[in-house]
Amino acid sequence: MEQRISLITLGVSDLGRARRFYESLGWTGARQPDDEVCFFQAGGMVFGLWTALGGHGAPGIELAHNVRSPEEVGTVLEEAARSGGSIVRPAAVADWGGTSGAFADPDGYVWEVAHNPGWTIAGDGSIRI
Amino acid sequence: MEQRISLITLGVSDLGRARRFYESLGWTGARQPDDEVCFFQAGGMVFGLWTALGGHGAPGIELAHNVRSPEEVGTVLEEAARSGGSIVRPAAVADWGGTSGAFADPDGYVWEVAHNPGWTIAGDGSIRI
Repeated sequence: MEQRISLITLGVSDLGRARRFYESLGWTGARQPDDEVCFFQAGGMVFGLWTALGGHGAPGIELAHNVRSPEEVGTVLEEAARSGGSIVRPAAVADWGGTSGAFADPDGYVWEVAHNPGWTIAGDGSIRI
Repeated sequence: MEQRISLITLGVSDLGRARRFYESLGWTGARQPDDEVCFFQAGGMVFGLWTALGGHGAPGIELAHNVRSPEEVGTVLEEAARSGGSIVRPAAVADWGGTSGAFADPDGYVWEVAHNPGWTIAGDGSIRI
């Protein structure tokens, strides 16, 4: 698993209110594909606001690690299991078109591991929406 | 407030176990200044594991935004309050030698805002431990 975090998502109750707050702080360029989620570029990572967070037992904040190929999702999950974590959702094709799974670390923090064909990962691991 | 996240910290119950898990995943270069906290560089940001998280009402995962001067801590907190957030800890000198305060966003997620004289923020906002 490369040493980086790709995405942090906050589960929010009112997407418009949450988006307006960060925009009022000066954040720009939000991409909002539907009425449930929006994404901001934040340096080399992505910051998300999502009304449906928690679908796989994550708490209010979820970390995600994006990989470079669909196959690598399962590889990272197995690596986490071998390291003392647990697989909470095996690799599968997601309804948004990518491949996704999740592991929990020893304290129970859930990391989504995902391949998103629409997002580019640079050589240094930074990710662009 | 610049459009970036500087630090994500997970509150952990056993620092050695948590550190070994991420090291077993291949993460290297952990800096552990004491027996309570350790930091990994993760791309342009920092990933922390801390046994004492929660001192100012944060949940298990805390986001932090580091700024370039001690004065800027208060400026960002006021900006957050004007934008619909609330100040949960005003700017003050911290016992670790920097300046720190915290705001909550409209959903209650706490962001620490900090100036750490020992960490360098580059022009693009990336931060190095």
